[in-house]
Amino acid sequence: MKNQKLVLAKRPDANVSADIFRLEEEQLPALNNGQFLVRNLYLSVDPAMRGWVTDMPNYIPPVALGEVMRSFAVGKIVESKHAGFSTGEIVYGRFGWQELTISDGSDVERKVNPDDAPLSVNLHVLGMTGATAWFGLTEIGNPQAGETVVVSTAAGAVGSMVGQIAKARGCRTIGITGSDEKAERCLNQFGYDAVINYKTCKDLSVELAEYCPNGIDVYFDNVSGPISDAVVSLFNVGARMTVCGVIGISSEHLNGPRVARTLLVKRAKMQGFLIFDHMHRLAQAVEGLLPLYKTDKLKFSEEIYNGLDQAPIGLESLLAGTNQGKVLVKL
Amino acid sequence: MKNQKLVLAKRPDANVSADIFRLEEEQLPALNNGQFLVRNLYLSVDPAMRGWVTDMPNYIPPVALGEVMRSFAVGKIVESKHAGFSTGEIVYGRFGWQELTISDGSDVERKVNPDDAPLSVNLHVLGMTGATAWFGLTEIGNPQAGETVVVSTAAGAVGSMVGQIAKARGCRTIGITGSDEKAERCLNQFGYDAVINYKTCKDLSVELAEYCPNGIDVYFDNVSGPISDAVVSLFNVGARMTVCGVIGISSEHLNGPRVARTLLVKRAKMQGFLIFDHMHRLAQAVEGLLPLYKTDKLKFSEEIYNGLDQAPIGLESLLAGTNQGKVLVKL
Repeated sequence: MKNQKLVLAKRPDANVSADIFRLEEEQLPALNNGQFLVRNLYLSVDPAMRGWVTDMPNYIPPVALGEVMRSFAVGKIVESKHAGFSTGEIVYGRFGWQELTISDGSDVERKVNPDDAPLSVNLHVLGMTGATAWFGLTEIGNPQAGETVVVSTAAGAVGSMVGQIAKARGCRTIGITGSDEKAERCLNQFGYDAVINYKTCKDLSVELAEYCPNGIDVYFDNVSGPISDAVVSLFNVGARMTVCGVIGISSEHLNGPRVARTLLVKRAKMQGFLIFDHMHRLAQAVEGLLPLYKTDKLKFSEEIYNGLDQAPIGLESLLAGTNQGKVLVKL
Repeated sequence: MKNQKLVLAKRPDANVSADIFRLEEEQLPALNNGQFLVRNLYLSVDPAMRGWVTDMPNYIPPVALGEVMRSFAVGKIVESKHAGFSTGEIVYGRFGWQELTISDGSDVERKVNPDDAPLSVNLHVLGMTGATAWFGLTEIGNPQAGETVVVSTAAGAVGSMVGQIAKARGCRTIGITGSDEKAERCLNQFGYDAVINYKTCKDLSVELAEYCPNGIDVYFDNVSGPISDAVVSLFNVGARMTVCGVIGISSEHLNGPRVARTLLVKRAKMQGFLIFDHMHRLAQAVEGLLPLYKTDKLKFSEEIYNGLDQAPIGLESLLAGTNQGKVLVKL
């Protein structure tokens, strides 16, 4: 059987552009015993991909040149020689940017119940995105009703989940985002109590202080850099900060105000979080997320691209921040 | 009855000098019901006092001008009209730099068993110092046998306890200190596996890497600043850092390398620790520390000054780093 796949053709320059990928066709071998064939239905496009295609030190090795682009996907098993996986089952896993994946089960994150939600939702609200928000917020941030929770990239796939989970727990939620369109979605779609457009606000610290009259108890950070400096300065005693992304550390912001004194005086915690340490517990996150999803407390938008060849375009959009919601590719 | 006390006469300039204190005499009133009189036997001199005498924002209000200097002390109850405290009992508490203290019990941290150890030891190994090391290391750092633990101000009152507790738990312990004399004590008295004099070493990062071939799992930090930058750069995945002091953040080092990327990539934790949040659990720390002390696993040195008027001199020595061991005043 023939497979179409997107492989990494070269390392990116400063910005990731679509031309670092190359579409290739290959002839798949017959299945061995213990293998099954997945026809991918939706592919994921994630901010982490920026790191995966560069060869800077990271939490996992970069995608090798010539290798299929690493990606989560939801697919349907179309043939099986594996006792644990049957034809017709839906699976969520690390299947890559390709039409077909031969799996031995080791790259499967979970079997999907197609009655729970539209299939694409398993790639975000009930997938890695939702699990990132769930574990990163509830286990490190541990927000309590009445506390103030600040989220950077508040309209993003992860950020919007964080804001909504915190809201569902009775917190005051403040979002920081980078466009008026996203700010509007934060308020009207994701239910933040207040939102700040850091690009157009006069003084982030002043506006934050205004919207957080009781200080900040929990900070779910996807950016670091000057935005986070402003948030950290308003920490309450016992504040908890999840470091989930550092996209705001540009070459001009490698240095910044030291946080140690604030952490000491506020007895605050700053902790890095990487979802890959926790994917083996995905079912636990889904257990927490599904009731929220089913009671309509987890709103989302999807930006769906059609066709494998559109995946790099989707990634460009995501990394440029022009996307509107979770970026997906429908095959 | 007459009491001699040291009051804060003025705020310090850049450095804390002995002349910011003034010796005063006062006539004490008779005890009310519910009060008792403590004759202080040993007064403590602590690094935190630098913060207490300045009016910069801090975790507790500064000592007011004209007020007796805040301090822990061990004393003997010499008169009591309090049902819970009897004449002859030894108590450890926040009794201030003075000969006599009228207490209602609210400033007592614990009653001391004089058979456990020499009385002065209750001011450090079995007092705030030991509790700082105990809770800050075991609860935030949570060191496991075989892990590498780095301690800054490794020969200090707290640092030396941290190193020894970690050693007793089977860790590899690396100390960072600022003089050859202290380095020698780290090795021969406190049992560190290796020690670095940051003032004379060629390149702290290089030497640290050499002494920590398996990276760094736990960092108990009393300084922040460039020393900590070097330590953080060697963090292992899952590293835990206790921020217990920030004496290395001088005006020239207010900014430094951002830690967020390291925390993220290493899924590491940085958490501020202040012993005053935990003093109500002092008995729990003593329960952990006493068996180590009694089996001679907690070595210490004392630098004892004689007479109330010498307390400011002791503080000068401590803040200049010229002290040899825990600074105490014997009355």
